[in-house]
Amino acid sequence: MTQIVAPPHPFDAAVELSAFDAGRSHGHTDPAYANMVGPFGGITAATLLRAAQQHPERLGEPLSLTVNFAGPIADGPFEVTARPTRTNRSTQHWNIELTQDGVVTTTATAVFGIRRETWTSTDITPPAVPAADAVAVQGFPDFIAWARNYEMRFVEGAIPDVADDTAGEQSDSTTTLWVRDNPPRALDFPALASLCDVFYPRVFLRLGRMLPAGTVSLTVYFHADAAMLAEQADEAVLGTARAQNFGNGYFDQSGEIWGRDGVLLATTHQLVYFKS
Amino acid sequence: MTQIVAPPHPFDAAVELSAFDAGRSHGHTDPAYANMVGPFGGITAATLLRAAQQHPERLGEPLSLTVNFAGPIADGPFEVTARPTRTNRSTQHWNIELTQDGVVTTTATAVFGIRRETWTSTDITPPAVPAADAVAVQGFPDFIAWARNYEMRFVEGAIPDVADDTAGEQSDSTTTLWVRDNPPRALDFPALASLCDVFYPRVFLRLGRMLPAGTVSLTVYFHADAAMLAEQADEAVLGTARAQNFGNGYFDQSGEIWGRDGVLLATTHQLVYFKS
Repeated sequence: MTQIVAPPHPFDAAVELSAFDAGRSHGHTDPAYANMVGPFGGITAATLLRAAQQHPERLGEPLSLTVNFAGPIADGPFEVTARPTRTNRSTQHWNIELTQDGVVTTTATAVFGIRRETWTSTDITPPAVPAADAVAVQGFPDFIAWARNYEMRFVEGAIPDVADDTAGEQSDSTTTLWVRDNPPRALDFPALASLCDVFYPRVFLRLGRMLPAGTVSLTVYFHADAAMLAEQADEAVLGTARAQNFGNGYFDQSGEIWGRDGVLLATTHQLVYFKS
Repeated sequence: MTQIVAPPHPFDAAVELSAFDAGRSHGHTDPAYANMVGPFGGITAATLLRAAQQHPERLGEPLSLTVNFAGPIADGPFEVTARPTRTNRSTQHWNIELTQDGVVTTTATAVFGIRRETWTSTDITPPAVPAADAVAVQGFPDFIAWARNYEMRFVEGAIPDVADDTAGEQSDSTTTLWVRDNPPRALDFPALASLCDVFYPRVFLRLGRMLPAGTVSLTVYFHADAAMLAEQADEAVLGTARAQNFGNGYFDQSGEIWGRDGVLLATTHQLVYFKS
């Protein structure tokens, strides 16, 4: 009898970790999610979150995640350690670290928790946009491998065309896009964390060109619980992000990921290095 | 000869750490900065930042800080460990931990760096407000000790009056205030970090009452360098903050701290637990 096993989704292959004890696991960079230097930050964030998620002592669901990109990750194997620093009745705090040959490349902290129903309100509103189907699919330049794993439909603020010298500076740093995994994949917490880094550096948009830039620290606040993620299934989410301040080599950007029926799935912030 | 030594500013007394080796120091909670349960989160954030700042291997100035409030801090002594996880040519990453009797109460990561001049732009604008002197000083209810160390002048969104049953719910979660240390004190990085937590939980404002709530994770992006802080001296800064989303026991709020001449000193975000 021949057993047919579907290959894993590219995202699942990229965040795969083989545990060799409770707190330590091995992974490997995946060329499918390569960025210009090292892997896409979103896939690294997703991998670190997974390391805590798959820990046998893990409590509840992710509430927040902060990932610090301390140094470049070389193509090849890496080790992830995830350690609960404190476990309370309904919350749990984590320190997570990615190393290569014993050298730290990435650190993270995460908070997990058991949610319970409370008063609910969303004080911000999603941008007014056409339906995903009404917006053309448009990717990143081909040399950015990771972006090929996302079906992107830019409503505003597509990545500047590197071949177009007339793109020029612009005053608005906002990008809004419909986005989902390509091929489609049901949303889970690691995939949502990765989507939070799908907004390329805002400085590209303001200056109308690509330049050396990289995330230094990324924070995700998860507003979705597992039930809300299940509702979303594999449909496109609406992402929107903008910058606050650029200066002295760094800028910050903030974004939101909206799901079906205008539900806020996550808010996200990052500090980004740039050289101009 | 009698030597007259001025007592330290209350803020400096509260964040005082005595190092007993490079990475470990002792501190003590200060009743002057007590909150309803344990110390004011801002003073804890400032203390953890100082632990990295005073480390002999510290490189450059703070760029970002994330503090995770893992458990209550009891009145009394504590230990802070600060460890550089990676030092690059111009950036340095830190893990910081506050423990009491060996139990972790607070974890943090910080990024420090040497800044250099680049293209500059502030894409957001400060709220239009009257000058600080034109706004009446108004504090928090007297049982919140830490707030007495800040001179607060609320332009909008003062803390609801607990004695006023008619305060009621309101649709806007924004607080904007002029604020500085009381007595005035020249701004530095720890003081700026502390100011980022001066916004009481937005859920109080939305529901028109105080309820159990506490910061779970706080992130600060420092846009100011030392020269900008020196410019600010001990003048009031303009702080403004608002919520994004409330639900299932948690909400997030984002804020900005503006300095003289409309300079953006810091942006800040936090995830907050609440019980309604």
